[in-house]
Amino acid sequence: MNNHEETFFFDTHAYAGGEEGEIFKKTLAQSENMLVGLNCLLPGQMQAVHVHVGEDKFYLVMEGRGYFQVGDVFRNAGAGTLVWAPASLPHSVVNNGPDLLVLLVVIAPSPGY
Amino acid sequence: MNNHEETFFFDTHAYAGGEEGEIFKKTLAQSENMLVGLNCLLPGQMQAVHVHVGEDKFYLVMEGRGYFQVGDVFRNAGAGTLVWAPASLPHSVVNNGPDLLVLLVVIAPSPGY
Repeated sequence: MNNHEETFFFDTHAYAGGEEGEIFKKTLAQSENMLVGLNCLLPGQMQAVHVHVGEDKFYLVMEGRGYFQVGDVFRNAGAGTLVWAPASLPHSVVNNGPDLLVLLVVIAPSPGY
Repeated sequence: MNNHEETFFFDTHAYAGGEEGEIFKKTLAQSENMLVGLNCLLPGQMQAVHVHVGEDKFYLVMEGRGYFQVGDVFRNAGAGTLVWAPASLPHSVVNNGPDLLVLLVVIAPSPGY
């Protein structure tokens, strides 16, 4: 392994975690163009409804399952489901399952960069 | 289900496929800010080394395994590994495993949009 390898390759499983209180967030890669990270929710934790103005976002469910809102659509989703939240559309997620909910989260362009 | 649900929620497993000849590509969501899709490689198929000028990209291995290049780094990667290919850095992938290689591919900003 060299330093570059750690810059380009990320084992997402190794970074997943859960914390009481605020949901667990870990940035994996970031540039002006996009932010790539993990959001992990313990059972019962939620990310309240919010919007990103001018930034498109998606969640990819990696592990567990959650209950998502995008605009006026509400749906349960499990591993392998990609949830697309276009700019300015309200979205939220709650972990309504028994296990840790691990989400890959991508926002483009990168917020606050 | 309503029309909006199909716009916001994508079961990535349902879209994966493999084709002889050119590698299988399926766009899931696209805006000016980013392109989100699947690339699927049959055993032995490859995406030759190339660059995206001004666009950052990543692969996320969803199923199978592959041998990746980013810049001067070459590495095998399996499910759960995220491969970050910053703008203008040469990258490639070959399916060196026995099973279909399913990759989530994200490019930001969106090419040719």
